[in-house]
Amino acid sequence: MSADPRAARRARLVEALDDDLGALVVTHPANVRYLTGYVGSNGIAIVGRDGASLLTDFRYKSSAAEQLDAACELVIRPRDMLAGVPDAAAVVAAGGGIAFEGAHISFQQGSRLSQLLRDAGHQAASRADLVEGLRVVKDADEVAAIRRSAEVTDAALQRVLAGGLVGRRERDVAWDLLTALHDLGAEGPSFEPIVAAAANGAKPHAMPGDDPIPAGTLVTIDMGAIVDGYCSDMTRTVATGPLDAKLTEIEAVCARAQQAALDATRAGVGCKELDAVARGVITEAGYGEEFGHGLGHGVGLEIHEAPRVSSEGTGELASGMVVTIEPGIYVEGVGGVRIEDLVVVTHDGCEVLSKTSKDPAILLAGS
Amino acid sequence: MSADPRAARRARLVEALDDDLGALVVTHPANVRYLTGYVGSNGIAIVGRDGASLLTDFRYKSSAAEQLDAACELVIRPRDMLAGVPDAAAVVAAGGGIAFEGAHISFQQGSRLSQLLRDAGHQAASRADLVEGLRVVKDADEVAAIRRSAEVTDAALQRVLAGGLVGRRERDVAWDLLTALHDLGAEGPSFEPIVAAAANGAKPHAMPGDDPIPAGTLVTIDMGAIVDGYCSDMTRTVATGPLDAKLTEIEAVCARAQQAALDATRAGVGCKELDAVARGVITEAGYGEEFGHGLGHGVGLEIHEAPRVSSEGTGELASGMVVTIEPGIYVEGVGGVRIEDLVVVTHDGCEVLSKTSKDPAILLAGS
Repeated sequence: MSADPRAARRARLVEALDDDLGALVVTHPANVRYLTGYVGSNGIAIVGRDGASLLTDFRYKSSAAEQLDAACELVIRPRDMLAGVPDAAAVVAAGGGIAFEGAHISFQQGSRLSQLLRDAGHQAASRADLVEGLRVVKDADEVAAIRRSAEVTDAALQRVLAGGLVGRRERDVAWDLLTALHDLGAEGPSFEPIVAAAANGAKPHAMPGDDPIPAGTLVTIDMGAIVDGYCSDMTRTVATGPLDAKLTEIEAVCARAQQAALDATRAGVGCKELDAVARGVITEAGYGEEFGHGLGHGVGLEIHEAPRVSSEGTGELASGMVVTIEPGIYVEGVGGVRIEDLVVVTHDGCEVLSKTSKDPAILLAGS
Repeated sequence: MSADPRAARRARLVEALDDDLGALVVTHPANVRYLTGYVGSNGIAIVGRDGASLLTDFRYKSSAAEQLDAACELVIRPRDMLAGVPDAAAVVAAGGGIAFEGAHISFQQGSRLSQLLRDAGHQAASRADLVEGLRVVKDADEVAAIRRSAEVTDAALQRVLAGGLVGRRERDVAWDLLTALHDLGAEGPSFEPIVAAAANGAKPHAMPGDDPIPAGTLVTIDMGAIVDGYCSDMTRTVATGPLDAKLTEIEAVCARAQQAALDATRAGVGCKELDAVARGVITEAGYGEEFGHGLGHGVGLEIHEAPRVSSEGTGELASGMVVTIEPGIYVEGVGGVRIEDLVVVTHDGCEVLSKTSKDPAILLAGS
């Protein structure tokens, strides 16, 4: 008899609660899905010492019934569900206080929920990162889903690159990536693809534009899929022909920094220290100011989740974490480069899930 | 010399502030865009009696500079921008208190911002719906953008319907709708299209599935575009062949209810009263329990915005509001129907922006 992973996650969440708390009101959709399997909007999960329930409204009655496990009770409420939370929480909280996710409820609604809970005689408390703390280490099923998601991303990028880039508009290439993700079975993209050529590549989060992609420049393509609810994330920067000295240099520096960070990735390394490995290579080459973001982030049910691998990151990597390793160099008015792999952290290193070649000359032949 | 609409909107916002307040900290992306033109993540607008500023981080420096009007100052801050809000707000608040959008900041961040403001010697207050209250009546440019968005939606649906539905998977039809929206110039869909056939149509928010669409049933298609930042929204329920008596009946009842509501739409009618017009027709026909959502909602920079046209709606329609009129009937295990137009409210009626035929037999010939 194998336990449902959701029931096991709820048990771990209850263990993480302060002693004086009896239940957590979960309002973040990714956390709700992780704990109950519910997929849809307007769902609130309540996980307590004496059980769990999922509140939703009329619109999701039949789909929610199909999604929950047997140990999670379904409660159908009017569309404004907050008023039903105190009663539903009291059922499972074993007399303890009721916490809610302060980072995932509005100030207005959080204030209202606190008042409703106090009016019903409960202690109310805001807590952060309780479920995120569980989600940071992935179980085998989660890694398998992320691996499938990364495979779809690889296949989609390779299909689009095979068609060439020169003369095409960034936004059309971005659409082709979306089409390829769909054709290959993704539920959707994990974010809108970035396709940024030439000077546009100097914007880390550029929006795909209407100009034709020129020859002899760098094109940064950042994309990912959602498969079985799990995200992937990969960036490649490809050359559309021979590059000038500056672009050649920043690409090579970024590639060295990325490889150095991959080589240093393993359980036990500090998030800040790992960021410093890549940042050191780039700074030494004189581009420290042009690497204005962190090295990476966790990926799972969300495209950006814990841990944060940056100069402000805290804690260490652990086996089973899935993170990106993505240094970049952005030279305003000139161009940019970013190289990103998705990796699973292991005891003595990491497994790189992104398989597409990192050679910028991948396109030189067909461009 | 015509004033920038954003400056005019900011002036109206300042007029709407309580006398003791000097500025509003705007964190909702649609509100930030409405007031400043800034499009991107991680932007905070501060609108005060003595001016306006937009805070964002390094990543959006160059794009933000292109988007703002001359009267709005750009402030680049570290990625966690909240700590910079008190100083930036003090510059424009003319000594008054500082309000923030309590519905659009997390409980955790709102509590932190309150503390930061008080530590800096400001009065801090949570306010709701100040910008939404301005956005509810659209100006001519906004209506023009919504009209273009509705035209793209019409054209996309007609293109896909021309290819027939029978034997195709709902999810493939949904993808074709997305492709058509893209080809026709939409920035994106305003939400993921709903394509729900047969019993799936009984779920108001069904996810497109993998079963082939059968002949002789109803297929509900709910979709919209984003054009120049503005959303559209339209639902048609089409027949894939001759229908049985039950489906014929619910379609006819829904169509009558929808037309009755359109006929009653004009400036001055109560939101609740308008909902009751459609609900009355459906209830009289014996399907009141099967119409489990409101009649409609406002549409603009967001797909769902004020006003709420439902049994719980408050206030009256006004000229220049853009709302949906979308009654539905959902018979579990059997099927469903929803018919939705996007309309501009006028002094003595409304202009229907959705032009696609509402005849359910539109597909009978080609199916």
